[in-house]
Amino acid sequence: MPGPVQSIERAAAILRLLARGSGRLGVGEIASALDLAKGTAHGILRTLQRVGFVEQDRATGKYQLGAALLHLGTSYLDVNELRSRAINWADALAARSGEAVHIGTPLEGKVLVVHHVFRPDDTLQTLDVGALLPPHASALGKVLLAFDNGLALTVQRAELPAFTHRTITDPKVLARTLAGVREAGWAHETEEAVPGDASIAAPIRGFGGLVVGAIGISGAMERICDGRGQPDPTLVTYVRDAARAVSRDLGAARW
Amino acid sequence: MPGPVQSIERAAAILRLLARGSGRLGVGEIASALDLAKGTAHGILRTLQRVGFVEQDRATGKYQLGAALLHLGTSYLDVNELRSRAINWADALAARSGEAVHIGTPLEGKVLVVHHVFRPDDTLQTLDVGALLPPHASALGKVLLAFDNGLALTVQRAELPAFTHRTITDPKVLARTLAGVREAGWAHETEEAVPGDASIAAPIRGFGGLVVGAIGISGAMERICDGRGQPDPTLVTYVRDAARAVSRDLGAARW
Repeated sequence: MPGPVQSIERAAAILRLLARGSGRLGVGEIASALDLAKGTAHGILRTLQRVGFVEQDRATGKYQLGAALLHLGTSYLDVNELRSRAINWADALAARSGEAVHIGTPLEGKVLVVHHVFRPDDTLQTLDVGALLPPHASALGKVLLAFDNGLALTVQRAELPAFTHRTITDPKVLARTLAGVREAGWAHETEEAVPGDASIAAPIRGFGGLVVGAIGISGAMERICDGRGQPDPTLVTYVRDAARAVSRDLGAARW
Repeated sequence: MPGPVQSIERAAAILRLLARGSGRLGVGEIASALDLAKGTAHGILRTLQRVGFVEQDRATGKYQLGAALLHLGTSYLDVNELRSRAINWADALAARSGEAVHIGTPLEGKVLVVHHVFRPDDTLQTLDVGALLPPHASALGKVLLAFDNGLALTVQRAELPAFTHRTITDPKVLARTLAGVREAGWAHETEEAVPGDASIAAPIRGFGGLVVGAIGISGAMERICDGRGQPDPTLVTYVRDAARAVSRDLGAARW
């Protein structure tokens, strides 16, 4: 079996670095962040520029991500079976619940949003597709952590940053919460990522019953939760129904 | 100066290949399409899989684009200055014209859509961000062909495929059309890409006056054109005003 190709791994590390923070870095900053010789970093950057994966700012000489990545990223969505099977069910869930719907899948210890249906009203909303959500502070993430061993292992080794005073930051509390998610078959979060917001999610299973993603709704706490601050049981049913419908379309057994 | 890194160029070629057509290919198909030894293709694919740029289907063993590309693609949008400066003007243009607005930039001989504002009504619309439009059959593309030498050179060497009976397929006719676009300062297209649809676009200039993109509206021919089949002069003014406003924000001289 051939081994990994080092220059490709380094190129990927440069692209990931540029996707973080301000998004514009000089060759010296890139070389020192990744512990590469400046000449090595420069050779990789020039090649990435030739193929359109990075662009160089004329004025400052700094590098940023290139336009070719946008087309590859949306081409990924076109072949993504989870997303294509889920689109109609996600629309229906948004209509039934009156809330925004997200579908997520694990990526690099986070939750990658692969589909987003806006809340069906006239408010200005920003598309979240391509965003990475913190797994321990989102309902989608708790579902994936509860059922995806790979993601769970990555997060066990990572810090649990606090976004609000209600974010779960203690690994033991998170482990107990995830045991509850596995038992209940769905997850929720109230003001753990954004003050005033809450979310509910359920697992999407593919062929053979493996969890391949999660679908959920999110919105203002006073709409998602009932008078006692618990997730509205009707909304929970809507989310679980949608997750089951997508799972059936993906070939999971009916249960 | 270091030369290009061959394995990165090959990796990029594999990703571009997977972005075309059905999106799922076996290692043998990839190797023969790119004239690589099968072992070489396999080594690159395994590395691309490790970094999340490709995924392998468990059942068929075929490769497809990976989730990490989606995050990189949307991160590109976050740092794209053309898009960030244009967002508010694009919203205003959609509101004034009542039509869908697109912003495009050249990529690999095509027009990459970097921003899309839906037509302000309740109809179901699909986000075009990340799509590649044919330059000779779109108003955005004609603007970019008229003002961007790199794109014009690529298209001069390429076929001009017909999408409708009105698509410009003769290079001489296209050259005359582009001379007219340079003189007028804007472009239009009527049923050249999609029967019944028309579009109008104008160039966005950056610092120093270089054309860095195009902004335009598109919609049903009977709304975009007047009774004689010509683009509605009021809509042309709206598009040109928006293009000038974005150009000013990008540092182009006021003219």
